[in-house]
Amino acid sequence: MTATIIDGKAFAATVREKVAAGVATLKADHGITPGLAVVLVGEDPASQVYVRNKGTQTIEVGMNSFEHKLPADVPEAELYALIDRLNADPAVHGILVQFPVPDHLSETDIVARIDPAKDVDGLHVVNAGLLASGQKAMVSCTPLGCLMLLRDQLGSLSGLNAVVVGRSNLVGKPLAQLLLRDSCTVTIAHSRTKDLPEVCRGADILIAAVGRPQMVKGDWVKPGAAVIDVGINRIDAPERGEGKTRLVGDVDFASASEVAGAITPVPGGVGPMTIACLLANTLTACCRANDLPEPDGLTA
Amino acid sequence: MTATIIDGKAFAATVREKVAAGVATLKADHGITPGLAVVLVGEDPASQVYVRNKGTQTIEVGMNSFEHKLPADVPEAELYALIDRLNADPAVHGILVQFPVPDHLSETDIVARIDPAKDVDGLHVVNAGLLASGQKAMVSCTPLGCLMLLRDQLGSLSGLNAVVVGRSNLVGKPLAQLLLRDSCTVTIAHSRTKDLPEVCRGADILIAAVGRPQMVKGDWVKPGAAVIDVGINRIDAPERGEGKTRLVGDVDFASASEVAGAITPVPGGVGPMTIACLLANTLTACCRANDLPEPDGLTA
Repeated sequence: MTATIIDGKAFAATVREKVAAGVATLKADHGITPGLAVVLVGEDPASQVYVRNKGTQTIEVGMNSFEHKLPADVPEAELYALIDRLNADPAVHGILVQFPVPDHLSETDIVARIDPAKDVDGLHVVNAGLLASGQKAMVSCTPLGCLMLLRDQLGSLSGLNAVVVGRSNLVGKPLAQLLLRDSCTVTIAHSRTKDLPEVCRGADILIAAVGRPQMVKGDWVKPGAAVIDVGINRIDAPERGEGKTRLVGDVDFASASEVAGAITPVPGGVGPMTIACLLANTLTACCRANDLPEPDGLTA
Repeated sequence: MTATIIDGKAFAATVREKVAAGVATLKADHGITPGLAVVLVGEDPASQVYVRNKGTQTIEVGMNSFEHKLPADVPEAELYALIDRLNADPAVHGILVQFPVPDHLSETDIVARIDPAKDVDGLHVVNAGLLASGQKAMVSCTPLGCLMLLRDQLGSLSGLNAVVVGRSNLVGKPLAQLLLRDSCTVTIAHSRTKDLPEVCRGADILIAAVGRPQMVKGDWVKPGAAVIDVGINRIDAPERGEGKTRLVGDVDFASASEVAGAITPVPGGVGPMTIACLLANTLTACCRANDLPEPDGLTA
């Protein structure tokens, strides 16, 4: 058996198209343009690339993009004053502070300062609580992207056995909540789990989100299972030349793709969904802020 | 094999003793007396009994008990004004509004009005979010009671397979979070789960919290497992005379107690832990409000 490769790049493009259509409707019918504000503190090169990509894609779907760049030594109070202005600005529907931030700033406190309704990264404790209690939340982008890929691949998830390997606040735990909401039987496994391979072999849906390169092997996968690989790990690739590296996931793709029914590759699987879901969340936040119906197929 | 019967009534008494000792220390060393405010709207007879029991036990452990009784037709604004006053009152460390409330009031809105730091029932969305993200929370009383019984019975829970049957916001979901925090491998099962007996047979710790009388049978239980029965169901008991009833749990105690290593009875298992944990939470809230160390063994 050879698995269907889940093309996250292509699917992310369809998500962006849906977002663009939703934005066009909002503009035409209500004169409203969703706006995403991104705050970058300092000069971290990787962060600059991310922020640029987010800005470009925000414009491409027809939204307003507001970029705020602050020096690395910006006083906390100044950053908070900016967040407060963005919270109060009716043209801003989503706020994202690019992490990591310099050491003198606290990521927890920054997230707590953002209006939960504009927290399109889904990091605020209120959004974690809304998600945990089955209410409407802003859901963080990577778990939301995984859910969208699974629904697209499998249709209804009800009654399926889902095993989430990894219990991070960013991915494992919110994804478990989403799968439970879709009526999966959900198991959360982690480093303390006994006989992890056996636990994984019970999964109709297997999520790997641990950050350990190629940990999940083919013989951990139930034949026909859907495998979602959230990991992005850079490893040495001497076969590509001296000092070369390549990206791999938490799943050993070569062996797992022989057993799974469907599997996401790395790169090109979950990764491209993240910014697409950020745009989807911004559209959702804009609709909620204006008491308009939420976009179809773009929420949890 | 015959299971150890977990005596919740006796263990709850030890919890209340610990709370009383903590209260005595607070008074002696800091001149602080923890206070619990209970708000009762209307005349529901069962609620009146609960509120009276809570008040009595609060006094018994040396805390202040503040009871506020409002008429069944109290305007929402008046109830909120009371909650606001209790939120602001430094003598009040815990606030509990007894549910159910009359139909013109919203339980969700009432809970949202309570200061999360004083939400000793652990119902506020902020507390759900803090729990879900592994931070210090007020944890709702029944899940906290289950956790205490398990820790007392088993010691470390790390690496054990826990199966929680039931995904309610009040019990199943927060208990899953607590077990995950204690490093169990946690499976959440529910009405859509396929082959529930087989899922349950994988559990070292089996929690039943579904509200279906005697649903979990002995052959669903792994030999030696710890079984926690959260259900309280009243069923007909014609053997006790015409029209008689009795209380049973979600577990078929007769068959399960032949297989389990330890099991809670109904009544006398989880039930008595609930008010004990309410007192524990009030003490914890008081310590946090005064920047004092939290009581030992009374938190999650």
